[in-house]
Amino acid sequence: MSAYDELLERLKDIDMIGQIGGLLGWDQEVLMPPKAAALRAEQLAWASKAGHMRLTDPRIGELLEELEASEELDDVQAANIRLARESYDKATKLPTEFVAEMAKHRSESLVSWTEARAKDDFSIFRDNLAKSIDLARQKADYLGFDELRYDALLDIYETGLTVARLDPLFAGLRDSVAPLIKAVVESENRPDMSWVEGNSWAQSGQEALSQGVTEAIGFDFDAGRRDVSTHPFCGGTNPDDVRWTTRYSESDPFGSLYGSMHETGHGTYEQGRRRDLDFQPAGEANGLGVHESQSRMWENQVGRSREFCEWVLPLWQQHFPENMEGVSAKALWQAVNLVEPSLIRVEADEATYNLHIMIRYEIEKRLIAGDLEVDDLPDAWDDMYEKFLGIRAPNRALGVLQDIHWSMGAFGYFPTYTLGNLYAAQLLAAAREDLPEHDEQIRRGEFAPLLAWMREHVHQRGSILEPADLIEEATGSPPSPDAFVEYLQDKVERLYGVTA
Amino acid sequence: MSAYDELLERLKDIDMIGQIGGLLGWDQEVLMPPKAAALRAEQLAWASKAGHMRLTDPRIGELLEELEASEELDDVQAANIRLARESYDKATKLPTEFVAEMAKHRSESLVSWTEARAKDDFSIFRDNLAKSIDLARQKADYLGFDELRYDALLDIYETGLTVARLDPLFAGLRDSVAPLIKAVVESENRPDMSWVEGNSWAQSGQEALSQGVTEAIGFDFDAGRRDVSTHPFCGGTNPDDVRWTTRYSESDPFGSLYGSMHETGHGTYEQGRRRDLDFQPAGEANGLGVHESQSRMWENQVGRSREFCEWVLPLWQQHFPENMEGVSAKALWQAVNLVEPSLIRVEADEATYNLHIMIRYEIEKRLIAGDLEVDDLPDAWDDMYEKFLGIRAPNRALGVLQDIHWSMGAFGYFPTYTLGNLYAAQLLAAAREDLPEHDEQIRRGEFAPLLAWMREHVHQRGSILEPADLIEEATGSPPSPDAFVEYLQDKVERLYGVTA
Repeated sequence: MSAYDELLERLKDIDMIGQIGGLLGWDQEVLMPPKAAALRAEQLAWASKAGHMRLTDPRIGELLEELEASEELDDVQAANIRLARESYDKATKLPTEFVAEMAKHRSESLVSWTEARAKDDFSIFRDNLAKSIDLARQKADYLGFDELRYDALLDIYETGLTVARLDPLFAGLRDSVAPLIKAVVESENRPDMSWVEGNSWAQSGQEALSQGVTEAIGFDFDAGRRDVSTHPFCGGTNPDDVRWTTRYSESDPFGSLYGSMHETGHGTYEQGRRRDLDFQPAGEANGLGVHESQSRMWENQVGRSREFCEWVLPLWQQHFPENMEGVSAKALWQAVNLVEPSLIRVEADEATYNLHIMIRYEIEKRLIAGDLEVDDLPDAWDDMYEKFLGIRAPNRALGVLQDIHWSMGAFGYFPTYTLGNLYAAQLLAAAREDLPEHDEQIRRGEFAPLLAWMREHVHQRGSILEPADLIEEATGSPPSPDAFVEYLQDKVERLYGVTA
Repeated sequence: MSAYDELLERLKDIDMIGQIGGLLGWDQEVLMPPKAAALRAEQLAWASKAGHMRLTDPRIGELLEELEASEELDDVQAANIRLARESYDKATKLPTEFVAEMAKHRSESLVSWTEARAKDDFSIFRDNLAKSIDLARQKADYLGFDELRYDALLDIYETGLTVARLDPLFAGLRDSVAPLIKAVVESENRPDMSWVEGNSWAQSGQEALSQGVTEAIGFDFDAGRRDVSTHPFCGGTNPDDVRWTTRYSESDPFGSLYGSMHETGHGTYEQGRRRDLDFQPAGEANGLGVHESQSRMWENQVGRSREFCEWVLPLWQQHFPENMEGVSAKALWQAVNLVEPSLIRVEADEATYNLHIMIRYEIEKRLIAGDLEVDDLPDAWDDMYEKFLGIRAPNRALGVLQDIHWSMGAFGYFPTYTLGNLYAAQLLAAAREDLPEHDEQIRRGEFAPLLAWMREHVHQRGSILEPADLIEEATGSPPSPDAFVEYLQDKVERLYGVTA
């Protein structure tokens, strides 16, 4: 067997464990009986350890060294070797005891964060957070970096991402979006939300609506499922078994529909992978930013467009005939695009969302660099919300304690959400050049052309290129905030009649 | 670490893989999307291979040799060592290539059986069946036996079981039960089934009825689930996560209720295991016969008793008020105890069921011994049905092709079904001695005393003893058909007014 074949066989073994772990995790969130929690944690830890042992097998290092010296590699082979090297280095650079310490701390930290948020008392979480920051710094030192420690953390979630790349993206975004939001707030043109808020929305109708829309987009339910979970996500085991979840609130019909479209974006990406690259890292979905581009595109760029609202209105009317009486496509479009500064990121609208991310990004940079002390964090958080969004949290639970990420040690993760928004806009702008009838197609509910474009330019390209290179290949330009800013300015002007 | 601790650690690792395989299998039957089938098969094969590699690790053989020489072992330690030895020997005695050949043949054989049954054409399955028999003989030779090849196959499913032990049990049973059935048939006292067959039974009502009954029995739904699948089964991963399934037919309300009680019997057994023996073979449920005793006890001995019917009638009335109008507890009791010779084993009543098993047992003995040729099997099958049950299959699909087991190479499995019935009767007779108010308790829906008795004498005893010894410890007598025969004679006399 050649070194390359042996490497692929070993990677398949690791991927198989990952697939099994995917099912264990999905089941845990969706339907596992409560008393099974402790032993499920053991099963997941077993799978994680089994995968880690195989990944850090010195034989993989030997194979990589041999293969990296080869000269005749095609792009898939080169990508598999590069990606295996990244995984191998990340896994072997962290000492086993350090990984165990992080895992143990994560469990404790999650508990204290949960309690702190419930009791609205930052001091309960304070020491664990301080240690999480310290561990994140150590992790960065183990992994290595060129300029900033924080770069090593960003790279975990999006290969090649650095502060030097991110700062200009965020600056361009902030300079354009912040004044736009200010203009909307000052215009006092709040759309009519009374028909939404004044009605009750039966779960059965929301389910039928979500199902109809996600089938129309092209999610294959013979190779996947829709279920309910507290925290919506897209998981499963492989392209033949993609499982996403949503949640229902009878007072808010938008959460389940747009959540479903979001997860359908993730799901169609997974279903669209190159099947001749099964079990190979080159065939896997690209970094988190690109993944998020697919979810945000269907959720926002498509789902909150005027054309989509015109297409979907009859479905709304079919499933909620009484509630929708007298509601026009325009009224629906305005309601799903309410722009309003708010405290909670996960509930934020398309315009204000990225400001929530920027706040966290600025704070993380300073925390990791040691420019901001943990004791000063809660007030710094509130000050930044006041500065960026003009509102201030009345308590810590709605402020610094709202997100789970830091309790899990996930520093460097948040920026991928904004990257997703930027990539989505950039990809759709590029797709429009090939699909001149795009708006009309959406109005007719013809989603296949857009999905096919994403299949060809994104899904089928897997991880053969690094994320920024994939975006450049697909759109002709490196990642930039321009397409998103233009999209948002245009939309806000049409909705609110304001410019900035 | 001591040799014993190392053995337990290795056994835990193997059990963990088994638990994960349990979830993969459950998911496959219950909710996996159809296109996921091929990769799920790969995942299951991966888990099976991973477990097999660990089980056949020569280090286990070394540890066992060392431990078998120890003198101071308590009963749990001795059982763990004995059971690990059995598994190790069974796994190592079969050459890897032979195991692979069996697995490959099983897949092909399953396909040809499915086609043969659908087309009612035995010839399609004939060659595969002949090879299955040949492989079963080879397997027996690899595993070893004292008297008969068939003994080695019986031992796979119930440790210590042999033809010498089974023949007297079956003979005693046949001599008593066959005339009883004949007497019932001749009496022409068929109960009134018109209220059952003439009504439609909504699935929602059947679900509520099953749920109410299984909760009352004491199945813990915080540590388990009820779902729907084509082939009902009880699976899951461990005592904290026991998952059973049932199926619904709107023309037959008994199938789902008694199927649910059957699986609840299996499920309460799993939930009742000794938790200080988690991951240890000594703590696992005993052989298939004992497992089946728990399911058949709740399904038949309890569920088809006059007292249970009196207790459950109000539940029937609650969920099916119109259908149950005018139906008395006695009429319900008579209907759920219809005794009638039929062709299909899985639909057979309590009295005729064991004759179906005996036919397969006699045939398997002769096939494995070479006393019956495959080409003569279909007619031999029909002749035995005529002899034992007085009916003859109109075609092969309802005859020799009805069961899946032989296509899976499972020779020696069927007898455990009848053992389950015998053990159930014997255990309940013993429990009655400790529970003098048993009948009254069932009439009041107080199932806890009986469940507690089974917990103490069966569930908590795990696999510390071999099956026959467990039955003797719990009941004071070795396995015997007497309790079952007495139970059946008494019941048939009360129902049909006949004796034999």
